[in-house]
Amino acid sequence: MKLSKLVGDRFKERPTDCVVDSHALMVRGGYIKLMANGIFSSYMPLKRITRKIEQIIREEMDAIDGQEVQFPVVMPASIWQESGRYESIGAEMARFQDRSGSPLVLGMTHEEAAVHLVRDYAKSYAKYPFMVYQIQTKFRDEARPRAGLIRVREFTMKDAYSFHTSQEDLEEYYARCHKAYERIYTRVGVPEVISVASDSGMMGGSVSHEFMLLTPIGEDSIAICGECGYSANMEAAECILEKTEHVSAELTKVHTPDMHTIEEVCGFLGSSPDKSCKAVVYQRNKDDSYVILFIRGDLEVNETKLTNHLGCEIHPAEITEESGIKAGFIGPVGLVDGVTVLYDRSLESASGLICGANETDYHYTGLDMARDAAGAEYHDFAKIRDGGICPHCGKPAIRISRGIEVGNIFQLGTKYTKSMDMTYTDQNGEIRYPIMGCYGIGVGRLAASVCEAHHDENGPIWPKAIAPWQVHLCAVRADQPEVKEAADRLCGELEAKGMEVIYDDREVSAGVMFSDADLLGVPLRAVVSPRNLKQGIVEITSRDKTLSEKAALEDAASVIESLFNTL
Amino acid sequence: MKLSKLVGDRFKERPTDCVVDSHALMVRGGYIKLMANGIFSSYMPLKRITRKIEQIIREEMDAIDGQEVQFPVVMPASIWQESGRYESIGAEMARFQDRSGSPLVLGMTHEEAAVHLVRDYAKSYAKYPFMVYQIQTKFRDEARPRAGLIRVREFTMKDAYSFHTSQEDLEEYYARCHKAYERIYTRVGVPEVISVASDSGMMGGSVSHEFMLLTPIGEDSIAICGECGYSANMEAAECILEKTEHVSAELTKVHTPDMHTIEEVCGFLGSSPDKSCKAVVYQRNKDDSYVILFIRGDLEVNETKLTNHLGCEIHPAEITEESGIKAGFIGPVGLVDGVTVLYDRSLESASGLICGANETDYHYTGLDMARDAAGAEYHDFAKIRDGGICPHCGKPAIRISRGIEVGNIFQLGTKYTKSMDMTYTDQNGEIRYPIMGCYGIGVGRLAASVCEAHHDENGPIWPKAIAPWQVHLCAVRADQPEVKEAADRLCGELEAKGMEVIYDDREVSAGVMFSDADLLGVPLRAVVSPRNLKQGIVEITSRDKTLSEKAALEDAASVIESLFNTL
Repeated sequence: MKLSKLVGDRFKERPTDCVVDSHALMVRGGYIKLMANGIFSSYMPLKRITRKIEQIIREEMDAIDGQEVQFPVVMPASIWQESGRYESIGAEMARFQDRSGSPLVLGMTHEEAAVHLVRDYAKSYAKYPFMVYQIQTKFRDEARPRAGLIRVREFTMKDAYSFHTSQEDLEEYYARCHKAYERIYTRVGVPEVISVASDSGMMGGSVSHEFMLLTPIGEDSIAICGECGYSANMEAAECILEKTEHVSAELTKVHTPDMHTIEEVCGFLGSSPDKSCKAVVYQRNKDDSYVILFIRGDLEVNETKLTNHLGCEIHPAEITEESGIKAGFIGPVGLVDGVTVLYDRSLESASGLICGANETDYHYTGLDMARDAAGAEYHDFAKIRDGGICPHCGKPAIRISRGIEVGNIFQLGTKYTKSMDMTYTDQNGEIRYPIMGCYGIGVGRLAASVCEAHHDENGPIWPKAIAPWQVHLCAVRADQPEVKEAADRLCGELEAKGMEVIYDDREVSAGVMFSDADLLGVPLRAVVSPRNLKQGIVEITSRDKTLSEKAALEDAASVIESLFNTL
Repeated sequence: MKLSKLVGDRFKERPTDCVVDSHALMVRGGYIKLMANGIFSSYMPLKRITRKIEQIIREEMDAIDGQEVQFPVVMPASIWQESGRYESIGAEMARFQDRSGSPLVLGMTHEEAAVHLVRDYAKSYAKYPFMVYQIQTKFRDEARPRAGLIRVREFTMKDAYSFHTSQEDLEEYYARCHKAYERIYTRVGVPEVISVASDSGMMGGSVSHEFMLLTPIGEDSIAICGECGYSANMEAAECILEKTEHVSAELTKVHTPDMHTIEEVCGFLGSSPDKSCKAVVYQRNKDDSYVILFIRGDLEVNETKLTNHLGCEIHPAEITEESGIKAGFIGPVGLVDGVTVLYDRSLESASGLICGANETDYHYTGLDMARDAAGAEYHDFAKIRDGGICPHCGKPAIRISRGIEVGNIFQLGTKYTKSMDMTYTDQNGEIRYPIMGCYGIGVGRLAASVCEAHHDENGPIWPKAIAPWQVHLCAVRADQPEVKEAADRLCGELEAKGMEVIYDDREVSAGVMFSDADLLGVPLRAVVSPRNLKQGIVEITSRDKTLSEKAALEDAASVIESLFNTL
């Protein structure tokens, strides 16, 4: 492939709208073109990268007995109504009607389609277990696409669905798939990806893991224990707190004029937020009914845990006069009726607390939960903190890191097989629901994550297994016939060896050539130039700068081939 | 791959809703599963076939300097508004709004996306020519999906777009692409596909070809000259007629009570339809205004030609009283005003004709077009007929055949570059519009067409290049340890040679095994059985029944490999 004919512009200036490096480099290198918010076209270099990633994923899925199939992008609403997700999923699912008025959706995940494909087939236990997967385009109407290919609306995903007759069998397969994922990340060049326990979100099920590439630009927060290696998405990480000593004090109303925040009140009363009971108010999306969550004043609410507990979506409340709720002065004692009240575990048997008195400009001191909020039930609604206690080993060694989720695996259980009435007959002739697992990897996001992990200021440094080409051949001063001739011949020799060559024979300066080569990030660069020709050599360097060699012109193709194999 | 784990049911009975063989066999063989009208999921055997077809297409597109890219499935309405097709394309384009209310469409073709991708890049003549292509899912809301994968709503397509600075360059590339298409059809196993001149339809442009697999179940009609080899889609084929002699007669009104059709009137008056002037009435879709087309009574209207001439969509008219049009008695003389009147070339200088008198129960005889419809303009609106005159060699040797369109190529001209303002600077510094070509192949339809061309009553006979597997290994009486052991070993040996094996070691009868093998249509079948083992042999047969061999068990893998290579 001649670079002079490669469609796409390369340039030096970082586009101002690019917040993360992979986005900037993919725009600067002619990899992607924005068509609409969160919707991109891919130029040839990215397409070559994603095809290689897809092939690696395909091989690893086949190696764990996956069967490649294809589900539709456009699906009838009916199968989503069967599972109940046509109602439970919000605006992120694109919906439309066909010419006859039938409701259709765009697939953002394919559990329903997988059950639809196999439920007539897998009626006997003897057919199990099995796994089907596809690599296909999906559309999810994200509210906030960002960071180039990291969070988009249209994306290509490998999604796999396994079906089992026992939880043990699912767990065994889940572990095999976990290992396959590790091999995938290693093969595409990011062996540093870690798996963390995660929240299952809208997928249903209980056990799930996310595969995270740790990077400051990641949008997920991950709790990792420095002692035992425990790791979990902050959304899922249990918040463990040390018990505090009991303080005997009377519940006493105090005047706290115009003090609305915990910090103001605690400052005024000479206390600290961890000695207070904070109220955080939400409303359910479906009917705007109020949910008041009490939590220790120094902690933050983990809204994922709260949503899971409630089983519905919520948003921060706008408190009206009519509600009777006294914003800024809310407490567990004397609260209005008709609202849902929840208590975080941080308050369990806590005492000596400051809290609102449900009366404007008044708080209580001396709140004793066991005494003043008798009968309260406590659940874990708090965010784990940096320096917090590890739920696994109990040591205060939790560190919070940021990461990009580059894959996820779920033990789904029978959520979809039950709702969609997929059954099989077991050995004893009894009708049962199969147990499912599902396993996803976003291909474009993975490509961007590899770029995020492996780049310098001049461009991506693509790992050899997924690089768009293997050798970037530069003919410096291609206007000189001997340069052109030597480079043409070398290009031919490399291609005859089956190597993938991007060949720059443009009549441009060496500087332009090399900065373009940096942006394409090809593992090896070979330079034919008048100076090199005088010495009868070709200069060979690696994109990651670990390697710089000279080879005799006549041996150059062989040398390049063996250098590439050692990368 | 073990057949016992292959997801999908195979069965004998032809489904009653399957009109064509490829549809019936793909359902019976566990290739496809219907999810909604015109929307299918693919099981593994079909996915393996389509991936092989895609790879052949990819190699041939790369061989003519194509650059694989990817366009979005979901596109903003804005780029379709630029080209004008957001308005001109009807209900077949799926439209919806995103969460912010922005209008989006699903791609049914990607000319707009191609121009969007390259228009900032290709600003100088030096960048031309180039071609970009993708293999991607498309959605077209067909009014009448039919025949399994032959006409669907969601499909995978290879679509390519080339850009040129001169018509000559486009034509040269168009010819290269034509040859690449011929290689593709040959490689996937249907060298019998022919190319025919076609109508460009909504794509714009003038010159275009369709690639047709001739088969009685095809939905296209193709005119082929038995003398000179001329071929064209009936939609595009020019209708040539011999001139008739002039007849001198007076225009005479005659009473023709209750005779509405040409046949009735001609019978009553002792004439024949080719001596009549028939009126066919349409209404424009956009405003229901009337279009009256006069054509010789023995000919049929080619509505594609009529639509192209009018530049808008039409439908057969429902004639109201108020219109003043006398249905059944319409003629060129004394017709109401305010309607569009068109004349087919078959009437040019015709005379002695019967026609309606625009008065209920009256016709004229003796119509002389030159005299009575002076000033009429004549265009070609007629359908070419079986036995008709070849527009190329002039001989009456036209035969009408039916075919499936398995690809098409278009010379688009500047329709999209002009409307979307894509320009480049030529050698002389002048701003010009590039000239485009586009080139499509539907992957699933091609797979179904190959099946249609190559099958017997028991199943598809897949050509070796696209067969889902290469060898179908049957272990008959796999319950006998020596059979199982020999078959397992042979399977291992074949796989070690890199052959793709589907291995049936189920404990089912030979009859069930062989009918499943027929449905999977794999080129070679190898049978290990107690009887064969006694003789120390493996039976090898080809799916197309041209080959039946016995190989010594120890040589079987090598024999199978070399037999496969000779197929």
